[in-house]
Amino acid sequence: MAVTNRDMANAVRALSMDAVEAAKSGHVGLPLGMADAATVLFRKFLKFDPKDPNWADRDRFVLSAGHGSMLIYSLLHLTGYASVSRDDIRNFRQMGASTPGHPENFVTTGVETTTGPLGQGIATAVGMAIAERHLNARFGNDLVDHRTWVVAGDGCLMEGLSQEAITLAGHMKLNKLIVLFDDNAVTIDGSTDLSDSTDQCARFEASGWISRRVDGHDEKDVEAALKWATKQKKPVFLAVKTIIGFGAPKLAGTGKAHGGPYGAEEIDGIRKSLNWPHAPFEVPEAIEKAWAKAGERSVAEHAAWKKRLAASPHKGEFNAAIAGRLPKNLGKAIIKHKKAVAEGGASKATRVWSGEALEVITGLVPEMVGGSADLSGSNNTKTSHTAPMTPKSWSGRYIHYGVREHAMAAAMNGMALHGGIIPYSGTFLVFADYSRAAIRLGALMGTQVIHVMTHDSIGLGEDGPTHQPVEHVASLRAMPNMVVFRPADGVETAECWELALHRNDGPATMALTRQNVAPARKTHTDENLSAKGGYVLSPAGKGKERGVLIATGSEVEIALKAQAMLAEEGIAVRVVSMPSMELFGQQDAAYRAETLGKELPKVAIEAGVRFGWDRWIGADGGFVGMDSFGASAPYQKLYQHFGITAEAAVAAIKERV
Amino acid sequence: MAVTNRDMANAVRALSMDAVEAAKSGHVGLPLGMADAATVLFRKFLKFDPKDPNWADRDRFVLSAGHGSMLIYSLLHLTGYASVSRDDIRNFRQMGASTPGHPENFVTTGVETTTGPLGQGIATAVGMAIAERHLNARFGNDLVDHRTWVVAGDGCLMEGLSQEAITLAGHMKLNKLIVLFDDNAVTIDGSTDLSDSTDQCARFEASGWISRRVDGHDEKDVEAALKWATKQKKPVFLAVKTIIGFGAPKLAGTGKAHGGPYGAEEIDGIRKSLNWPHAPFEVPEAIEKAWAKAGERSVAEHAAWKKRLAASPHKGEFNAAIAGRLPKNLGKAIIKHKKAVAEGGASKATRVWSGEALEVITGLVPEMVGGSADLSGSNNTKTSHTAPMTPKSWSGRYIHYGVREHAMAAAMNGMALHGGIIPYSGTFLVFADYSRAAIRLGALMGTQVIHVMTHDSIGLGEDGPTHQPVEHVASLRAMPNMVVFRPADGVETAECWELALHRNDGPATMALTRQNVAPARKTHTDENLSAKGGYVLSPAGKGKERGVLIATGSEVEIALKAQAMLAEEGIAVRVVSMPSMELFGQQDAAYRAETLGKELPKVAIEAGVRFGWDRWIGADGGFVGMDSFGASAPYQKLYQHFGITAEAAVAAIKERV
Repeated sequence: MAVTNRDMANAVRALSMDAVEAAKSGHVGLPLGMADAATVLFRKFLKFDPKDPNWADRDRFVLSAGHGSMLIYSLLHLTGYASVSRDDIRNFRQMGASTPGHPENFVTTGVETTTGPLGQGIATAVGMAIAERHLNARFGNDLVDHRTWVVAGDGCLMEGLSQEAITLAGHMKLNKLIVLFDDNAVTIDGSTDLSDSTDQCARFEASGWISRRVDGHDEKDVEAALKWATKQKKPVFLAVKTIIGFGAPKLAGTGKAHGGPYGAEEIDGIRKSLNWPHAPFEVPEAIEKAWAKAGERSVAEHAAWKKRLAASPHKGEFNAAIAGRLPKNLGKAIIKHKKAVAEGGASKATRVWSGEALEVITGLVPEMVGGSADLSGSNNTKTSHTAPMTPKSWSGRYIHYGVREHAMAAAMNGMALHGGIIPYSGTFLVFADYSRAAIRLGALMGTQVIHVMTHDSIGLGEDGPTHQPVEHVASLRAMPNMVVFRPADGVETAECWELALHRNDGPATMALTRQNVAPARKTHTDENLSAKGGYVLSPAGKGKERGVLIATGSEVEIALKAQAMLAEEGIAVRVVSMPSMELFGQQDAAYRAETLGKELPKVAIEAGVRFGWDRWIGADGGFVGMDSFGASAPYQKLYQHFGITAEAAVAAIKERV
Repeated sequence: MAVTNRDMANAVRALSMDAVEAAKSGHVGLPLGMADAATVLFRKFLKFDPKDPNWADRDRFVLSAGHGSMLIYSLLHLTGYASVSRDDIRNFRQMGASTPGHPENFVTTGVETTTGPLGQGIATAVGMAIAERHLNARFGNDLVDHRTWVVAGDGCLMEGLSQEAITLAGHMKLNKLIVLFDDNAVTIDGSTDLSDSTDQCARFEASGWISRRVDGHDEKDVEAALKWATKQKKPVFLAVKTIIGFGAPKLAGTGKAHGGPYGAEEIDGIRKSLNWPHAPFEVPEAIEKAWAKAGERSVAEHAAWKKRLAASPHKGEFNAAIAGRLPKNLGKAIIKHKKAVAEGGASKATRVWSGEALEVITGLVPEMVGGSADLSGSNNTKTSHTAPMTPKSWSGRYIHYGVREHAMAAAMNGMALHGGIIPYSGTFLVFADYSRAAIRLGALMGTQVIHVMTHDSIGLGEDGPTHQPVEHVASLRAMPNMVVFRPADGVETAECWELALHRNDGPATMALTRQNVAPARKTHTDENLSAKGGYVLSPAGKGKERGVLIATGSEVEIALKAQAMLAEEGIAVRVVSMPSMELFGQQDAAYRAETLGKELPKVAIEAGVRFGWDRWIGADGGFVGMDSFGASAPYQKLYQHFGITAEAAVAAIKERV
């Protein structure tokens, strides 16, 4: 008897439910509901090769509703990915298995992105689809021509992030992006009627998508819809009607079907209703074979692609882009730029210095794709090398993201995960709060994404406390695998950009001033002094050294002024510039102690909260900064008002010497 | 000659542009564009009394596009609010003036909420509109019957937050909520064509709203639309077509009209095109009088309302609710509950203890309105006293917010600002990242909002690192005016709830465990020991005291175990429980030093990052916690894997004694 789509889907269902039962936790409602549609997708449409999961031109499959992770693990396992063994499935959600509670791309090869926080998957997928179009424009159909498929649930679509993502995708006419909405009308609290009345098809159409309703349990209807979807000129939204917990005699279609083990009785009931008499974790050989065959469907296409790549004039460039290799002349160009900046001696805002560094860098690194959340002129992220990327001009390297900080950060994750792009983009630092969930996901995944965050303190002045970051630098420093840079002048800004570009295992934040800063580094060094995170910028002058001033960003200027004032009073202190607390923390203890002047009393100056500084200055160290929200006034007055002045730093040192 | 709507609108325009020119910064594009429509609203529809800005039954006006702040300052000034003088307008964006860069309700009486971060206003307004319906159900039409009006721009509507807000509003059929969309097709980067193609009317209709297009410069069309809007059964979206920078000869209708001073020449041009020959900051007397009259329009209605209140049987209860007075028997009830908990001696998750405390508290405090972002069963925020609030049952006190953490936090701000409600709601702590911008705005405004954040560490286990907070407690502690509570057991949880309820000048976060914790407080005390933020939970036993263990939440149990293990080895240490770092920081230095054992070596235990702890333990203190993201596995294994154990705490103490 021929193996049917339903048979194959039932294998997905069985493995999923057996795994959740064994783990005694997890979410089987979605795998049971979406198995039929996902099986059609993997059997007949998805371009992938389990033997080479990193094939650059594969289709991307994103399970935005990440709690249904067993769906993807079952599919990866059955189609032949080495990364997910039957034992991994048996050990779902256990330490060391490749089957964590939510899909984690850094744990499981074949998982394209980490999902679970709702809405992230669909927004990340938008970034992947953008990357595909851009690289297609750069390298041609021969090398880049694939689709991005998303399975999203009600939760994803309720998150505001999804709106930002879909309006961006609609505007950009990302027709190779296809979303399968698991339209099961249930969330954790119960029926979606409890909290939502949105007409999702109408919503997506209002955002520039085309939509179609599909019966998720009718193989033919799904196949017709997916085929139709591949031929549209707009991104495609398929409302796939499913029954959550399909097959479960008592729970199917209810809120209780969403998660948790169903219990032996219900699982037995599913086995009966699916006509699946096999033991837990067992799949009949015929079905296994059918799945293995499905996993080989794109082998020929893959081989043809390899041939095209081997013959392509773009081969070297393409491989370098995908590998994220930086051009060899970049280091020298940055040194040249630093020299010009140091010798120029101008006072400019670090956001302006950042723009100038980007002008050099984007000219050399074609993989850099910039953008801004509607603050291009303020963030200085646009350069002469980065023309706008639009549906009419995919080769552009600058994205007008609109006022969509969250989707911007998530889309950047998607571009980085796709490969071939080093994304950076800008907003005001205070609005990192809008995109924090995506920023964190990037830190967790280790994506190389650069967040340009300007207007980084009360130094932005008149816009007032809603726009003035106070706790943001601290809150980003608290995040694992995030490196925050807060450069003091044009030279440090260039150095920090160089460091961010070489950081290929995690995101970086560039905290930049709105206001002008005086040059701190007036003597050129080839060496990147910011690389150690903190260094003695200005040693103590004559006499016995009595203290240490540590500052970052715009407050380095204040520290240098305080140093001079103290010198006049015969008090010798050094000034340490600390553009990155994280990198400084990675240095050995001897360097750190030497730089910070060992037991010398310390005062830190930063126009933000003290939180996190005690590690470097001690609980009895002095701190000149903020302990409240800011206010609306010209910035010079705010610095006076909040006492972030050289005089305050002088006083803090004198209290301690 | 009669004063026309256009004349009055031109007064708004003139004051707005003169203020921005004087400040040399600000955003005059919106006031110039929306002045006509806003004038109709304030002259003929808005129910308000400038002589009593806090009249409980006033209409609420929210300028969601807060950068256009001069619109609201001009309107407040012209209609007779004492809070905004002509001098304040002259001193727009200057220190000490009531006219900060963005509208701040805590600075300017008459401003209903702080806006500027885009999308917040519309989402906050949804909370105000919910509050109105709920209090209407509680107190009747006689006392509560007003509308919420919002002016929102393209930026607000691009933010994902707005989608969460409008789908919630549509689902709840908030027909007394009316949004005027300043449909000027321009954002900072230029034409909205750069980044958006959304059909906003279709989008709002898909979300359960009714929409209408309006010519924002045709007084009659605006009046007809506003009249129509007051008669709908759904929330109303008016796409008010305007010309940004209306009247500016060169800039009108362009991206450059959005902000910044236009310069003398352009301003002269506006004066000519508006036929406004008056000197800067001058308004002809006839127009001033017409505006003053508009400000008196609701005086009779206000007087009638006062009479109704005076005669109402609900008077006392209404006034208490609006004043936010807690019932007198609350304190005793909490003491009784604490006693039962201490004597019960059960091990439960603090989220469960929180649910039990809420069962007591919501039974006594009718102002408490709870909810959850689709995690009711996990957050334990629903009690027997809080029936669902729905369009059919507005008296309910529990909101199924759906998967909308951000709108939930913003709506809570709106309810708190409206008055008469003490909002609390739940999600997982890790998803504080989704709502952080609204949480921050609440901290800035000082709204009494209680964020129940459960699953507060790797202790949530199998769901893995996407769901495990690591840096979240630190990042919330870094925020000014936020108090974070992380209680150790059922007694501390009840104490922290009591403290949160008495905190009426800012938000509180309750960080609660998923997993069971053993009782830490086995002996009942009437006194709220958590009130000082940290206290000696278990003094050192026999022998000379050698060190101090400090812990919070679920790690207090580990600290107590380590204390016992050390005692067996003859090493006497105390255990300090620190449910709130912020409250402990507010104690006097002597108490803090005494509690923390002065110079004794210290080890802190918290299943989060060290960031921020050095203040209490010193840079050479020991820390048993996390320095990376978590993993997916049963929680006991994770605690072992990441070394958050009594053994590790013992070792850390022994290294230091």
